[in-house]
Amino acid sequence: MSHILLPEFVVPENSELVAIFDRVRRSAPLIHCITNSVVTGFTANVVLALGGSPAMVDLPQEAEIFAGVADAVLINLGTPQADHRAAMLEAAASASSHGKPWVLDPVAVGSLPVRTALAQDLLAYGPTVIRANASEVVALAGFGSGGRGTDSSVPVDDAVDAAAHLVGLTGAVVCISGQVDVIVSAPNAFDALQVTKVVGGSDLLTKVTGGGCALGAVVAAFLAAEPKHPEVAAALAHSAYGVAAQKAAELSSGPGSFAVHFLDALSSLTAADVVGQGQIQWA
Amino acid sequence: MSHILLPEFVVPENSELVAIFDRVRRSAPLIHCITNSVVTGFTANVVLALGGSPAMVDLPQEAEIFAGVADAVLINLGTPQADHRAAMLEAAASASSHGKPWVLDPVAVGSLPVRTALAQDLLAYGPTVIRANASEVVALAGFGSGGRGTDSSVPVDDAVDAAAHLVGLTGAVVCISGQVDVIVSAPNAFDALQVTKVVGGSDLLTKVTGGGCALGAVVAAFLAAEPKHPEVAAALAHSAYGVAAQKAAELSSGPGSFAVHFLDALSSLTAADVVGQGQIQWA
Amino acid sequence: MSHILLPEFVVPENSELVAIFDRVRRSAPLIHCITNSVVTGFTANVVLALGGSPAMVDLPQEAEIFAGVADAVLINLGTPQADHRAAMLEAAASASSHGKPWVLDPVAVGSLPVRTALAQDLLAYGPTVIRANASEVVALAGFGSGGRGTDSSVPVDDAVDAAAHLVGLTGAVVCISGQVDVIVSAPNAFDALQVTKVVGGSDLLTKVTGGGCALGAVVAAFLAAEPKHPEVAAALAHSAYGVAAQKAAELSSGPGSFAVHFLDALSSLTAADVVGQGQIQWA
Repeated sequence: MSHILLPEFVVPENSELVAIFDRVRRSAPLIHCITNSVVTGFTANVVLALGGSPAMVDLPQEAEIFAGVADAVLINLGTPQADHRAAMLEAAASASSHGKPWVLDPVAVGSLPVRTALAQDLLAYGPTVIRANASEVVALAGFGSGGRGTDSSVPVDDAVDAAAHLVGLTGAVVCISGQVDVIVSAPNAFDALQVTKVVGGSDLLTKVTGGGCALGAVVAAFLAAEPKHPEVAAALAHSAYGVAAQKAAELSSGPGSFAVHFLDALSSLTAADVVGQGQIQWA
Repeated sequence: MSHILLPEFVVPENSELVAIFDRVRRSAPLIHCITNSVVTGFTANVVLALGGSPAMVDLPQEAEIFAGVADAVLINLGTPQADHRAAMLEAAASASSHGKPWVLDPVAVGSLPVRTALAQDLLAYGPTVIRANASEVVALAGFGSGGRGTDSSVPVDDAVDAAAHLVGLTGAVVCISGQVDVIVSAPNAFDALQVTKVVGGSDLLTKVTGGGCALGAVVAAFLAAEPKHPEVAAALAHSAYGVAAQKAAELSSGPGSFAVHFLDALSSLTAADVVGQGQIQWA
Repeated sequence: MSHILLPEFVVPENSELVAIFDRVRRSAPLIHCITNSVVTGFTANVVLALGGSPAMVDLPQEAEIFAGVADAVLINLGTPQADHRAAMLEAAASASSHGKPWVLDPVAVGSLPVRTALAQDLLAYGPTVIRANASEVVALAGFGSGGRGTDSSVPVDDAVDAAAHLVGLTGAVVCISGQVDVIVSAPNAFDALQVTKVVGGSDLLTKVTGGGCALGAVVAAFLAAEPKHPEVAAALAHSAYGVAAQKAAELSSGPGSFAVHFLDALSSLTAADVVGQGQIQWA
């Protein structure tokens, strides 16, 4: 087996980012979300504000059908009751076999056994993107036992090795959410790791329930618009989310008004805002 | 069998509409909602803002009891898990046998098999009102296969024939939600169809999850106040909802602030607002 | 058996209340909530605004583990599906055996059989606090059959005897929510009943779904910060909640804007606000 010269990751032009963003806006991607009971409403509102069409089809039998029809799928393990688990496995299998991009958000994986086993079963269906906090990435990779509830107890940088392991294992793009978001992928081959950072956002996102979970649905919407370059779609999704959060934070007096302004900001966000104010560090 | 001269539909006086609206406000109708997990909170807040008392009793055994105690019932098929399905069938049977008005919202019926079968089973209990978008009305009537998720792919006018079929089949008042809402009923007999249109509202309602679903609960509240003329109650409910949405839209910067202003507007809405600004076309 | 002189209830100094409040803020207590599907999002946002860390772990197997890890637990019977019931019983047993404070909110107990039986089973695990409206307290004590939905049909004062009975039976602190909140406990012994009243708050809390339910989670957060004096923690929680509600009401145009301002107010609330504006009547 000879070593071949791998193509390097090509940093996308701003015009390409603008085109992806405009496709999200124009195409109203149908996002199939099986998410937790705490954040269903907020997640749907985030997808709607972005211009997508959310559908929370979480029944066994129906989830399989719908994942084949949707433009992208989000599976979030926050409160996975038995029927939801069956629906998630169906949806992941269906998305995989229909070539639909899908996002796994392994909430609180690690110390809690039901979701931890489920997450491992879901990994077998090859998520396009895994979005999680640092503790969850570490736990999902088997490098640690997870955080405390939904809070991360591991710095983002410490999770990069675990993310790289998951990339190698599953081929997914792994997004570690934190003060700086870190997106680990292998766009060309497993031995040429791409680590992209996204700066910005607002701490107020951590004070609104679903601030992280809804980002998974936004990533799904961008994957629907750019399925061939999931690492680019994921980075742009994080950047757009962060720009909207910054705009909202400037107008807010606390987490209540922030959530309201955030939806308004997502709704009025333009490609120029995202490209002009977003801070993606591709290197 | 001789043809008899049927009484014509009598357009209600404004004073009658005012009286119905005031009864909704004053009587705090108890609205039993078995609705989907995405919109439970928003639906309850809409009912509260209107002056009603929402109760989301969705357990088998309890749903039967509660539907007999409530003033009206809403059954929404958005995310009908197995126990919810049992509770819905109990509640529909109980509402029917206790003479309580009830509303069926057959979300995403058509291509998804579980809810499609459930909707047919529920139709047998004679809903007072069916509220849905055009695709869902067409699918429920067996005239087509439904839309894409919760979005309608059929113009409202095309669904009127399907609605008329459902009216004939079930005796329900059928409300088709769209840019213009169309309410089809047979207040006097099946061969004298009444088609009422309600103009107004705001496109922002389609950008807030539950914007349609919560309307089903509002219709239930108006049915509680005017059970003998469900076609009038339904039209007035749509009109009041639309006036509140218009007021809210004028104050809003996007879907986040719209949802907030909408609840405030529902709460401060007066009978004079509804009768003065509502645009019901009875003809 | 000789009668001994019982120590009297010692009214806490303001400095002690300030210290408890600051511990809630600083320690980010992990609050395990198994609550109803209508209010999960709002409850989580209230806990976050207060500075706590909410986690809605509602699966059998996982709930047992998590209740042993959390700082306090809330169990709310609003929509207890079968798996939730199993998870609640596990969590209550686990909290009890790990010495973690836990709050029971027996929503709509009385006429609805499933939750009524469940509430009795849960009482056996010794809740630290029972928070409910007057009808629910009366029904839980077996003194009446409950209210109509989530509304109370009994004045708060009439429920004090029932509360005293529950205190004697379970050792819990019983909080009766109403226009004036009444907190009944026996901090030293069952024959020395302490009845504390908390004045203030806003009627708008009754117009936002979860206005009462989320208070249960706030009580849990204060119990985490002051587990040895649950009657003080509960009173301070009610007072803080009421002060935030009053601040929010002054800025609001209806229930929609109230919910937003309420989260902002909880987030910016200081110990000085609570001690200065709160109206606890310890006598």
